[in-house]
Amino acid sequence: MSAVQLFPAPIATVDAVLLTLRQGALCVGLITREQPPFTGLLALPGGYVHIPEDATLEAAAARILRDKARVECRFLEQLATFSGEARDPRGWSLTVVYFALVPEAELLAAGGALALHPVAGLPPLAFDHAAIIDAAVSRLRGRSSYSALPAFLLPPLFTLTELHAVYQQVLGTRLDPASFRRKITDQGIVEAAESRRVGAHRPAALFRLRAGQARSFLHRI
Amino acid sequence: MSAVQLFPAPIATVDAVLLTLRQGALCVGLITREQPPFTGLLALPGGYVHIPEDATLEAAAARILRDKARVECRFLEQLATFSGEARDPRGWSLTVVYFALVPEAELLAAGGALALHPVAGLPPLAFDHAAIIDAAVSRLRGRSSYSALPAFLLPPLFTLTELHAVYQQVLGTRLDPASFRRKITDQGIVEAAESRRVGAHRPAALFRLRAGQARSFLHRI
Repeated sequence: MSAVQLFPAPIATVDAVLLTLRQGALCVGLITREQPPFTGLLALPGGYVHIPEDATLEAAAARILRDKARVECRFLEQLATFSGEARDPRGWSLTVVYFALVPEAELLAAGGALALHPVAGLPPLAFDHAAIIDAAVSRLRGRSSYSALPAFLLPPLFTLTELHAVYQQVLGTRLDPASFRRKITDQGIVEAAESRRVGAHRPAALFRLRAGQARSFLHRI
Repeated sequence: MSAVQLFPAPIATVDAVLLTLRQGALCVGLITREQPPFTGLLALPGGYVHIPEDATLEAAAARILRDKARVECRFLEQLATFSGEARDPRGWSLTVVYFALVPEAELLAAGGALALHPVAGLPPLAFDHAAIIDAAVSRLRGRSSYSALPAFLLPPLFTLTELHAVYQQVLGTRLDPASFRRKITDQGIVEAAESRRVGAHRPAALFRLRAGQARSFLHRI
């Protein structure tokens, strides 16, 4: 008997909060639970670590999102681990939560089993998933004024107008367009890519995130 | 048989990175392992969740620090969860890591079993604890220029000169004293407390962290 089994162990799972923007509203990808506990309620996609298939917890989260949403997330990061005796009726449990940012177009193209629900006004959810989603949204908003995080809600190539809109939608506040453009370009968050011609208009300048800048800490946007 | 046991479960533990300043050097509290694996190597204090004694993982971390260092930490926060098949020779494991900031005087007064080691130049450590300590130090340094975090390395009452010294030690950089004082007071991080008379000198003004300001996000110090 290994030392591990001398104590009753907590139930340990991995959950993923996949956030996207749909028509300007921040949405989360949920599934309907088909098994107890909380049968019939909406829940985050999640599950157990598959040993030895998953090399790490992050790999487990990526596998879960690949299974449920059919996407490889460009942004996937550990949010926090939630725990306690009350959050799961089956017993003392912990869940290591990852959050992912995915452009809606990518989700739609992939198909997948997640249903998108606006984070404002969610119905009752299974477990403590409502609190977990709140924490993910707070983390996204808290870091958005100081980082390039919202850019992961756009496709790899975007216009500054699109980026400006996404920052406004995530932060829920109006940002002066000229000042936003200056800060974004001054801080080297993005770099110019090729241009895109829309109809008869003059081509819109396209940008992409600069490598390595994606998670840097910036001055306030 | 519960649903939990259908999969082989990872080993799940809790570890604590207790950081303090000793003579201006950032130090971590370590124990010498008396049992395999890694017998004789230094390691972070840690252990299993005690069900049902620990209400949450944070409560487990607080209990571990109470047992080992005999302190109640004013600052205790989840750092991250580390995982994988390679970090523990006993098998696939995860450890939920908390980090604590404690004034050295408090540690010395408490006695306790932790030995303080400067984070610069640690000997080989058990498990992936060297990487975990690096992550804790990065988190502390990364947040120190934007938050009141370093104040938790001081007793509850401190002078602005002491606070200035602690910020410099944590950040490893010189901060202009006048500019530092202005930013700290302008941003409402601290509030005036009673004064302390040192010998025949005029009393030094004492400050404390303002309630609720401790973890706020500040403009760059």
